[in-house]
Amino acid sequence: MRVENKIFQKKETIDRELERLLSRGDSLLFQAMRQTVLSGGKRYRPLLALASGECFGVLEDVMLHFACALELIHNYSLIHDDLPSMDDDDFRRGKPSCHKSFGEDIALLAGDSLLTLAFEVMSQAPLEEKLLPRKEKVIREISQLAGIKGMIGGQFLDITLSPEKITEKEYYELILKKTGSLIVASLKSGAILGDASPSQIHSLEEYGRNIGLAFQIRDDIIDSVKDVQEKHPPRPNAVSLFGLEKAKRKLKTFVERALRILEEACLESDELCYLASNLLESKSGSENG
Amino acid sequence: MRVENKIFQKKETIDRELERLLSRGDSLLFQAMRQTVLSGGKRYRPLLALASGECFGVLEDVMLHFACALELIHNYSLIHDDLPSMDDDDFRRGKPSCHKSFGEDIALLAGDSLLTLAFEVMSQAPLEEKLLPRKEKVIREISQLAGIKGMIGGQFLDITLSPEKITEKEYYELILKKTGSLIVASLKSGAILGDASPSQIHSLEEYGRNIGLAFQIRDDIIDSVKDVQEKHPPRPNAVSLFGLEKAKRKLKTFVERALRILEEACLESDELCYLASNLLESKSGSENG
Repeated sequence: MRVENKIFQKKETIDRELERLLSRGDSLLFQAMRQTVLSGGKRYRPLLALASGECFGVLEDVMLHFACALELIHNYSLIHDDLPSMDDDDFRRGKPSCHKSFGEDIALLAGDSLLTLAFEVMSQAPLEEKLLPRKEKVIREISQLAGIKGMIGGQFLDITLSPEKITEKEYYELILKKTGSLIVASLKSGAILGDASPSQIHSLEEYGRNIGLAFQIRDDIIDSVKDVQEKHPPRPNAVSLFGLEKAKRKLKTFVERALRILEEACLESDELCYLASNLLESKSGSENG
Repeated sequence: MRVENKIFQKKETIDRELERLLSRGDSLLFQAMRQTVLSGGKRYRPLLALASGECFGVLEDVMLHFACALELIHNYSLIHDDLPSMDDDDFRRGKPSCHKSFGEDIALLAGDSLLTLAFEVMSQAPLEEKLLPRKEKVIREISQLAGIKGMIGGQFLDITLSPEKITEKEYYELILKKTGSLIVASLKSGAILGDASPSQIHSLEEYGRNIGLAFQIRDDIIDSVKDVQEKHPPRPNAVSLFGLEKAKRKLKTFVERALRILEEACLESDELCYLASNLLESKSGSENG
């Protein structure tokens, strides 16, 4: 099967599972969670998790729990990030953002619910008893990479570093945490569950850091060429930092580096290669996946 | 040793461990987490967890992870609950609330960080491999009881039910979810880790529901007799619903019922009895623990 078809099928599986997970109630709060999670999105992180798990022979039924949990965590972060006290974004994926549709209070709780649900979903992954130490390790990794030393730490840098004064080093630290952490978590979860070797885990981590950088730079480029309303307050951005052409070159460099890492580690799954090289396609409409 | 002394020692242990967990960084975000978690609080939920674990022979070192995780979850909910879009509370435990000290954006992220850290702390609890199924079960229970069907569901009712039109039944549903869920989670986590029987778990759950109701009614009474600024908008409250005298009688009834449940189940740990009957002491300064 062509890789695009495999990816398409996996995306359908992820979408179905997310829909199932969010079908347990009908209150406004559930509606707010559903509107955010089920209104598109490229499912980049869960696709990476499934592709990584497949490399190491993890059953799709098991992997799907972690893949969806990572997408729930990603979506909670989008809802909270869009709030007026943060990025104050009125739109997300072309539709009114969660707080615009449901109010700030419900958006806040919808984000909290998605984060909490993510851990419930992980705890429910059907692993044999002898594999529970791996599950424990994955939950620990994901909580660390989603937390104050990872994704939330990146959001904190995003609101505290001045876009005018930010250095290249600080910008990389910011996006490695804000965007890279959850991407790395997706890849590591498949590798840990599949008992990959430490060097394989390390390679996937490096691959993840590079596509994380590429992913965010690509997003910044899309934002800069679309007629996007200025964020209030403005946030650090690759295009304002490097200029458009240099940002594009950097995007290409990081993708090439990611592909080389896969090759050197003999981890050239066609899906992992596709999920990196596809970042060079210039389709817009990303909005952070 | 007298029960008060045992409780005091456990509280010291909990406080030390929380301090240790929050000492990993020094950014404003860590400061915001620390100011909230380490500025007092009765540690009611972790004390319940430790008392329950002790009933069933769980090692304190293990139980402490879950006890502190529950306190972190409780504190994240307080930070988010105090935000302007929610209860809009300027004070918490007699000090400026988190968003008043650090701004709304950092308070939001501090809450998110505490919730995420709670799951990291649980995943790090040092259990033997053969006990990992119990750990998995506890993480599932806590995520469910803290989530949309539990605590967050209660917060949702709190902001959506009209305090003028609320019925007695709705009020109980609200506080059982909002306050009771995490109390029940604390008790169940000790029982599950200690392999309690289903009927013992059921009894602790019933005990927890009753002290949860008592706890919130007591809080409402304290709020009503203190010179507390009116909440904007006003929230459902036992005193406005029942009147002060009837609310006091109900508080007493729920505590007595909780004690009877312990007795009938032969679970009369002096600490569990104390943590129920102490709710009848009329010291103020509670502010939801």
